[in-house]
Amino acid sequence: MSYKDKIAVVGAGCTNFGENFEQSYQDLIYQAALEACQEAGIEFTDINAAWLGTAFPDAGVYKGRSGMDLAEALGVFDIPITRVSNYCATGGDAFRNACNSLLAGQHDVVLALGVEKLRDRTPTESIVKMMVDAGHPIYQKGFTAAGTFAVFATRHFNKFGTTREDLSLISVKNHKHALHNPKAHIRKELSLEDVMRSPMVAYPITLMESCPTTDGAAAVVLTRSEDAKKYNPDNKVMVKGHGFSVSTGWDLPFYDPHFDFTGFRATEIASRTAYKHAGVSDPYKEIDFAEVHDCFSIVELLTYEDLGFIEKGSGKKLIQEGITEHGGDIPVNVSGGLLSCGHPVGATGIRMLYELVRQLQGHAGKRQVIDAKLGLAHNIGGPGAVASVTLLGI
Amino acid sequence: MSYKDKIAVVGAGCTNFGENFEQSYQDLIYQAALEACQEAGIEFTDINAAWLGTAFPDAGVYKGRSGMDLAEALGVFDIPITRVSNYCATGGDAFRNACNSLLAGQHDVVLALGVEKLRDRTPTESIVKMMVDAGHPIYQKGFTAAGTFAVFATRHFNKFGTTREDLSLISVKNHKHALHNPKAHIRKELSLEDVMRSPMVAYPITLMESCPTTDGAAAVVLTRSEDAKKYNPDNKVMVKGHGFSVSTGWDLPFYDPHFDFTGFRATEIASRTAYKHAGVSDPYKEIDFAEVHDCFSIVELLTYEDLGFIEKGSGKKLIQEGITEHGGDIPVNVSGGLLSCGHPVGATGIRMLYELVRQLQGHAGKRQVIDAKLGLAHNIGGPGAVASVTLLGI
Repeated sequence: MSYKDKIAVVGAGCTNFGENFEQSYQDLIYQAALEACQEAGIEFTDINAAWLGTAFPDAGVYKGRSGMDLAEALGVFDIPITRVSNYCATGGDAFRNACNSLLAGQHDVVLALGVEKLRDRTPTESIVKMMVDAGHPIYQKGFTAAGTFAVFATRHFNKFGTTREDLSLISVKNHKHALHNPKAHIRKELSLEDVMRSPMVAYPITLMESCPTTDGAAAVVLTRSEDAKKYNPDNKVMVKGHGFSVSTGWDLPFYDPHFDFTGFRATEIASRTAYKHAGVSDPYKEIDFAEVHDCFSIVELLTYEDLGFIEKGSGKKLIQEGITEHGGDIPVNVSGGLLSCGHPVGATGIRMLYELVRQLQGHAGKRQVIDAKLGLAHNIGGPGAVASVTLLGI
Repeated sequence: MSYKDKIAVVGAGCTNFGENFEQSYQDLIYQAALEACQEAGIEFTDINAAWLGTAFPDAGVYKGRSGMDLAEALGVFDIPITRVSNYCATGGDAFRNACNSLLAGQHDVVLALGVEKLRDRTPTESIVKMMVDAGHPIYQKGFTAAGTFAVFATRHFNKFGTTREDLSLISVKNHKHALHNPKAHIRKELSLEDVMRSPMVAYPITLMESCPTTDGAAAVVLTRSEDAKKYNPDNKVMVKGHGFSVSTGWDLPFYDPHFDFTGFRATEIASRTAYKHAGVSDPYKEIDFAEVHDCFSIVELLTYEDLGFIEKGSGKKLIQEGITEHGGDIPVNVSGGLLSCGHPVGATGIRMLYELVRQLQGHAGKRQVIDAKLGLAHNIGGPGAVASVTLLGI
C-alpha cells in the first residue's frame, strides 16, 4: 500500500548539531521533541507512542538501548516506545515504523525521534576502535567506513573518469550551503584547495570530505492526514512515499562477484519504492530538492546516480555544472549535509526530514529552495547495505 | 484499533536454548527462521519484511546492530528489516512492529525473530560489568537485575506476608515443567530444598531462582488473517490482543515517592490494553495458560497480580495451591519459563509466542495444556519498566 498523502508531518524539531557538551543525551531529546510538539500544538503527554532511533549507545553515552530513555527524558510514561537501530539509516527506520503504526490505526499522534551523543567519548573509545577490538569481519582489515567508501571512489574514477576534484567540489558546495544553516556543526567556507589539501583519510577521501563526529537530535510528530489540521491548522507537509531496503551485508560486497563497487543497490530499491508510492516517474524533473547521505563526498555522488537523477557513471556532471547547488535545478544538501551538519548517527535521518519540512513550509530562511513542493530524504547505513528514502511534499 | 483476529501466526520456530557453542549467531537465526518458514510453507525469499530483536550486541557476539545481520543469516536481501531493542521486552516489541506493518497494509508476510548469543563471552565481559564500567546510574550501587528485583521481594514479604518458600516453589514448578520441554536449557527436577539452599544471589533470590545466561533464537511468521490459509491450511492461531507500555525509567523507582516496589505498572497497562482488544473481562477465568517473564522467581509472583489473575498481595495463593502448575486452573510457564529455558534476551518474547502456538495447536507433547484456547505471553524489560503482553488464541 502506498504511503501517499496518508500521513502528515505536523511538527518537526532539531537541536543545534555540534559539540553539545553542555547538553546531556536527555537534554537533546527534550529540545528536539519540544520544538516538534510545540509546532504540533501538543504536550508531551499527548503523544500516543514513540520510536527512538539511537544507533550506538555503547559508542556514545550508554543511553538509548530502550524506549525507556525517551520516556525518562520527556517524563512521558505508560505508552509504547520502541527503540530502533539500523546503523546510519536508523532515523529513517524509526520514521517508517512510526508511520506504520498510524496506518495500522494503533495510534493517532506519534513521535519519531533520533538522537546520538558521540562527542563525550575519546577517539580511543570510538566506534571504529570498538568494532576492531570486537573482531569485526572487515573493519580490522582497513575497511572502516572511510576505507570501504574509498574503494567505491577509486572504482568510479577507474570506470567512469570521475576525479578527485569532482568529489571535493561536493564538499565545497555543502560547506557553502551550511553558511545559511544556523544548526550546522561546521559553518566555514572552504575552497577547492582547502578540501583537496586537507589530510587524506583513505585515498581519495580527505578529511574535509568526511563528516565530523557530532551530537544532536531531531524529531517529527506524525498523524494521519485527516487529523493533521486538528493539530496544526497550517499543516501542509505530507508523506508522499517511502521505501526501505537491506540489500547487502558486511561480507557480501567483498565476496559477491557481481558487486562492482559503483553504487548502492539498497538506495536504488528504496527509492524506486518511494517513487512508486508518490507516482514519480522522472525523479530529476519531479523532485525539487534532496537531502542525501553525504557521510563522505563519494557517497553523495553515487547517490545522484542510485536515485536516478542521472545515469550511472555521470554523477560528476551534476556537481560540475552546479545543478545540485542551491539555485540549481535540483539542489542537494542545502542544509550543508552530513559533511557540515555532522552525523549524530540515529538523528541524521530525522534531521533530513526536519530540513524537508522547513523547506516545504517556506521557512528555510536564506537557504530556502524556491518553489519547493517535493523533497527527498536519503539515509544509508552499514557498507551501503541499508537505505531509507522518504518523499515529503505539499 | 484492536488487533483481535486481524493477524494470524502461520509459522513458529525455536532453537534449542542453552550453551550453543557449536552454532553462530547467524546459525541460530537460520534454524529458528527455517522451522517457522517451513511451517508457513514459504521460502526465506517469500518474506516481505522482517523485525530482528537483539538486545545486547555488545554483551554478546557483536552481532545484531542492524537488520543487516538477519539478511546475511538468511541470504534474504532487498526487503526492509528493522532491528528493535527494548531490554528484555525486545522480542515482544519486534512482534508488535511486525503486526503494525501488516495492519498498515505495507506487507503480506512478515517475520519477527529474536536472537541472542550470550555464552561466548566470559563473565568479566558480562552485561552487568559493562553497565557498571559505563557508570550506569544504579547498577554500580548494587541495583543489578537481581539486586533490583530483590527489593520487590522483600517489600512483598513485608507488606503481604509472602515468604521465601513461596518464591522457591515457583522455581520448583518451572523446573518440573521443563522436564517435558526438549528445548529448555536446564532440565533437572529440583526440590524445594535444592532451590532454597542454592547460593544466595541477592536476598531473598537464590541462584536457582535466577534465569541462566543462554543462547537461542525464536521466530514467528505472520500474515493478515484473511491470507492465513493460503500459507498454512491448518492455521488456527490468531492474535487476540496486544499491549505494550513503557511505564518507568531507571531512576524513577528510586525517586518516585509513589513507587512502592510491589508490582510493575507497565505489566498492568500492557495487559489491560491486550484484554480490551480481546474482550477479556476476567483474565483468571478466560485465559487458559500463560508464559510470563520469570527472570527471577519474584517476578512471576508479581506478574500473577499485575496481570489481574489475583488481587495484589495474594499471588502466593496461586503457587501454594498449585493453580499455576501444569494441570492447575491456569498453568503458568509450562515451557519451564525463563528459569529453565534460559533468557537469550531478544529471543525470549518470541520463544513465549512459540510456546503459545504449539499449545494452541495441540502440539505441545507431554506439556500440553488441555483445552488450550487462549494463551498469554508476558515480556518485561529494564527495572520492570517496559512490558509487552500478547494474547494468542484459536
